[in-house]
Amino acid sequence: VTSPRVGIALGSESDLPVMKGCVELLRRLEVPFDLEVVSAHRTPERAREYARTAAERGLRVLIAAAGGAAHLAGVLAAGTDLPVIGVPLDSSPLSGVDALYSTVQMPAGVPVATVAVGEFGAKNAAVLAARILALSDPAVGERLRRFRREMEESVAKANARARKEVGL
Amino acid sequence: VTSPRVGIALGSESDLPVMKGCVELLRRLEVPFDLEVVSAHRTPERAREYARTAAERGLRVLIAAAGGAAHLAGVLAAGTDLPVIGVPLDSSPLSGVDALYSTVQMPAGVPVATVAVGEFGAKNAAVLAARILALSDPAVGERLRRFRREMEESVAKANARARKEVGL
Amino acid sequence: VTSPRVGIALGSESDLPVMKGCVELLRRLEVPFDLEVVSAHRTPERAREYARTAAERGLRVLIAAAGGAAHLAGVLAAGTDLPVIGVPLDSSPLSGVDALYSTVQMPAGVPVATVAVGEFGAKNAAVLAARILALSDPAVGERLRRFRREMEESVAKANARARKEVGL
Amino acid sequence: VTSPRVGIALGSESDLPVMKGCVELLRRLEVPFDLEVVSAHRTPERAREYARTAAERGLRVLIAAAGGAAHLAGVLAAGTDLPVIGVPLDSSPLSGVDALYSTVQMPAGVPVATVAVGEFGAKNAAVLAARILALSDPAVGERLRRFRREMEESVAKANARARKEVGL
Amino acid sequence: VTSPRVGIALGSESDLPVMKGCVELLRRLEVPFDLEVVSAHRTPERAREYARTAAERGLRVLIAAAGGAAHLAGVLAAGTDLPVIGVPLDSSPLSGVDALYSTVQMPAGVPVATVAVGEFGAKNAAVLAARILALSDPAVGERLRRFRREMEESVAKANARARKEVGL
Amino acid sequence: VTSPRVGIALGSESDLPVMKGCVELLRRLEVPFDLEVVSAHRTPERAREYARTAAERGLRVLIAAAGGAAHLAGVLAAGTDLPVIGVPLDSSPLSGVDALYSTVQMPAGVPVATVAVGEFGAKNAAVLAARILALSDPAVGERLRRFRREMEESVAKANARARKEVGL
Amino acid sequence: VTSPRVGIALGSESDLPVMKGCVELLRRLEVPFDLEVVSAHRTPERAREYARTAAERGLRVLIAAAGGAAHLAGVLAAGTDLPVIGVPLDSSPLSGVDALYSTVQMPAGVPVATVAVGEFGAKNAAVLAARILALSDPAVGERLRRFRREMEESVAKANARARKEVGL
Amino acid sequence: VTSPRVGIALGSESDLPVMKGCVELLRRLEVPFDLEVVSAHRTPERAREYARTAAERGLRVLIAAAGGAAHLAGVLAAGTDLPVIGVPLDSSPLSGVDALYSTVQMPAGVPVATVAVGEFGAKNAAVLAARILALSDPAVGERLRRFRREMEESVAKANARARKEVGL
Repeated sequence: VTSPRVGIALGSESDLPVMKGCVELLRRLEVPFDLEVVSAHRTPERAREYARTAAERGLRVLIAAAGGAAHLAGVLAAGTDLPVIGVPLDSSPLSGVDALYSTVQMPAGVPVATVAVGEFGAKNAAVLAARILALSDPAVGERLRRFRREMEESVAKANARARKEVGL
Repeated sequence: VTSPRVGIALGSESDLPVMKGCVELLRRLEVPFDLEVVSAHRTPERAREYARTAAERGLRVLIAAAGGAAHLAGVLAAGTDLPVIGVPLDSSPLSGVDALYSTVQMPAGVPVATVAVGEFGAKNAAVLAARILALSDPAVGERLRRFRREMEESVAKANARARKEVGL
Repeated sequence: VTSPRVGIALGSESDLPVMKGCVELLRRLEVPFDLEVVSAHRTPERAREYARTAAERGLRVLIAAAGGAAHLAGVLAAGTDLPVIGVPLDSSPLSGVDALYSTVQMPAGVPVATVAVGEFGAKNAAVLAARILALSDPAVGERLRRFRREMEESVAKANARARKEVGL
Repeated sequence: VTSPRVGIALGSESDLPVMKGCVELLRRLEVPFDLEVVSAHRTPERAREYARTAAERGLRVLIAAAGGAAHLAGVLAAGTDLPVIGVPLDSSPLSGVDALYSTVQMPAGVPVATVAVGEFGAKNAAVLAARILALSDPAVGERLRRFRREMEESVAKANARARKEVGL
Repeated sequence: VTSPRVGIALGSESDLPVMKGCVELLRRLEVPFDLEVVSAHRTPERAREYARTAAERGLRVLIAAAGGAAHLAGVLAAGTDLPVIGVPLDSSPLSGVDALYSTVQMPAGVPVATVAVGEFGAKNAAVLAARILALSDPAVGERLRRFRREMEESVAKANARARKEVGL
Repeated sequence: VTSPRVGIALGSESDLPVMKGCVELLRRLEVPFDLEVVSAHRTPERAREYARTAAERGLRVLIAAAGGAAHLAGVLAAGTDLPVIGVPLDSSPLSGVDALYSTVQMPAGVPVATVAVGEFGAKNAAVLAARILALSDPAVGERLRRFRREMEESVAKANARARKEVGL
Repeated sequence: VTSPRVGIALGSESDLPVMKGCVELLRRLEVPFDLEVVSAHRTPERAREYARTAAERGLRVLIAAAGGAAHLAGVLAAGTDLPVIGVPLDSSPLSGVDALYSTVQMPAGVPVATVAVGEFGAKNAAVLAARILALSDPAVGERLRRFRREMEESVAKANARARKEVGL
Repeated sequence: VTSPRVGIALGSESDLPVMKGCVELLRRLEVPFDLEVVSAHRTPERAREYARTAAERGLRVLIAAAGGAAHLAGVLAAGTDLPVIGVPLDSSPLSGVDALYSTVQMPAGVPVATVAVGEFGAKNAAVLAARILALSDPAVGERLRRFRREMEESVAKANARARKEVGL
């Protein structure tokens, strides 16, 4: 088996249902991954260790998902030079705007590659990780091209269904 | 000299001008303090050390000021059981709303005592720290009572000036 | 029995369900508390009395929970020198942003220690109160350390469950 | 001289420049008024007294102007049955949205008649007070009708200037 | 029967359920009212007529409830010198923030007395109207004092229930 | 049969339920239309073709509906000189504010005629398209006048029902 | 001379500086226009007349610019079946978000074609009006195509300048 | 000379001053780059060509900066499988929130790696691009480690200055 290339860190177990969209898409793109629940605030030492050892464990891209004052992606980005993707989650009354701002507004020098709030972001974190890995792994690139064609085809089918639905 | 009881941590040197309001109020209330520039993202190890050793260095309250994705207060609160006061600063195009959400929306178990965005928050962090210290230091309590009387008097003077200004 | 150290004030009876998280956590941390429904607007005299007599009744930290134009925490902070923790609640169409701004944006001189909107804030008010009390009560400090270890352990268990769930 | 009918309460002396628009419009509409700096947080007892005695002092409408966590209008409305007009001011980094939410989102039973943030609101508080007073004072009503005609005429003049400016 | 003193205008039939809180409170305070569905956009002529004839029909206060781009209160305020109370409703995906801004941010010269978004605002429009009417109708003033006492008593009962609920 | 005059483009099949309000209103106004699912991001070439060939296919107005980072209307407006109407949809945790800003804030030179978020916008896109077509098609203008009268009548009926409901 | 085809209505004389971008672009596209200051709130009768007579005066598209609770576009759209373009202006402390929501969130049946807040919107109102007129006036269409080519050329020149500026 | 690895696309020439921070940081990290002004809306064909040919021109990461309805990053991401970094700029009255939402809220399948609004984002786009390139270019990785050390040192110096400034 191939060792994981993408490390998914969840700020909380309750983030898993939304992040399954990420897991499924990584499997569809055949990108090996690992997944851990790592809280920036409740297990700060583990979060630090996670970031510090990520590269040596063979990980090449980190994905961090968290809601509320979502510090996890930033904390990981502060502890590694790997690219870190942040998925802001909608898990407080503020609809994920808090998580979005906490994830994306990083100070100069320590970037987090932020994707959309919630479900769409969960899936796009997988695609973004694959795009990064494809730069040095042509097989992933080939699967991304296939994925793109499948998206196009699914839009064509959706188009046919929608037109039928409105009687065209 | 008394050793510092309050530790002020700034996320960036550029946060100092606003935080001078905090420094001045602590001096007025005769609360000994220390001040450090400690970035959660650019110096994560120092931030961790700062939090871990805060209690043993004699600090009893921490004040963390930061703008943007303001993680500093949360990172300190994750590393100590001392009360941590967060001052969100207005240092990005988002007017400090990003810093406010990043500071206040902490997950269950790791609180940050958040005060107002910017100048008012800088001053109120000092008063809040003094209120906490006053629980075990009657002299600080006495100075807070005097501070309260002085606020009342300054409102009375402002009232006189304002009435005169509009011809009453 | 020990007399209450923390006074919880609710702006409305309808705030109780969310604030039970606060009550439970104070009990878990063995911090004696009192709880009252005190409306800043519908019972202003009682709110004033509540604040004025809080210290002499032996209370050392106040927690005020309210939604909408949440003035309760500010009104209490104006009437006592005890530290006041504000919990903004999500009880209007504005999702608690109104309560957050009304609670946190206090003018210089009268701070409210604001925590997260809703459930997380309810719990964190308890932890923050305990952190403040622990400065002069080592037994509370010991319970906070235990609480921290239990949080770490619960993250470890959550991690195991989440990994299993995605087949790792 | 006629005794004041409208009481203007400012949360801070710094609110005066914007509120001069209110003062001028009340004078133009010949509505006698009083003005005080009364802080809900720094002088809570005075604020309470102000509200409690307003009716017996002959006031019929109160206008409260404040920024940030603008509690003043709400605190006055809680202490009197007179109609209270709230003017949210833009005096924090949050552009007056904090003051608007803190003023308008009052709980059921204790209304604040909220007007626009800042300058426009300052002027409209005067007009709204005059509309209320005109219900029992026909002379004020007559002045409001004149004010309305003058507004119409000033728009007509503005129209002529604007058309000329663009060469029409 | 007494002729209506308060005119309630609804922007849409779908606004009625929330505005029943207004109707009930006006009945409880024995303030005679009328109610009409009057759309600023779908029946502009009727809206204009409604405002123009309001005073001569004996109305003394208008209440306008609308959601989305809530222009109704402003349109009425432009067509009469009576005080107009605006109730912003939460009837679009923007949670009533659109209605709040559309109602409260009126230009200088034409005020709308804006109350809270939704249910609380519906009730407070009734209380505010009663406060205005009480200036020239002592019987309404007496009912407002009774209403205030009943609010206080209901808070006292709520307090007893809440304390029992948490075992105090 | 008349060839389509209005082209409706949906960013996603899931946008259809809300956009049925648009379809029904176009049918009621007897405006012939076409409908396609065309994703700006998943089928960029088709979106480009759609815009490029719209005028020559006889379309005179385009309606583009999309949620999230809603680029579809802007992409179409960049590829044709026909008027393009954008309907921002509420399909992300951000309640459609993201779609609204992405649709309306177009750079100088390439306008999108933006209507309300969601259901109301879907219907208004149809009416706006009809208003534009009516400039050169008097029959559509006649139907718009009838539609306006029917709206007025439906408000009158709603008024009767609402008054009855509250016992007037 | 050709009679005006586009009617520009300004809510206030102070809106003129920003709307000069609209005027200039209409002149560049050789679209004859008229311009009036017409306040929905201060001159409601004139606003109504303006809308009612617009079509018979030969106008085919209306452009309404206003800030704050920007009702002008909606009021015009309620009074005519011509397409109405709304330009929300940034003239209150709320940065034009109030004007945007007040303009775009129109109820079903009465659309306003909303463009961007401020300067960009002012210019795009002109282009959108031209796109609509071009449907029945090929000469305007030709000028729009030329305008498009000139935009492309200006981007090419900007590109050359920018590359030089960074030394490429 | 090495051929460019990073392609910077600006939506407008006016975006250049802020994006110089990106250019400087890429030069400091010795990452060869190209820069073009490419408007998604004013030069849609060029934007499409830019994306389509990016990989074959040797580019490995794209950076797109735009304000307002910032579609550029999304349009590029739709046209290539390379990772695309989006920098939302603050160039409209909405303070860059419009650009942030337009950039980050991409639909599932087409991610944009979004960084902070404005200056910080401009710099972080450079660092994020370098982190991605470092996965296959150890020399870039070495420069990132040096950059990290220099950041730490600059914080230490800032700390010394700040402490001196407040007299510690």
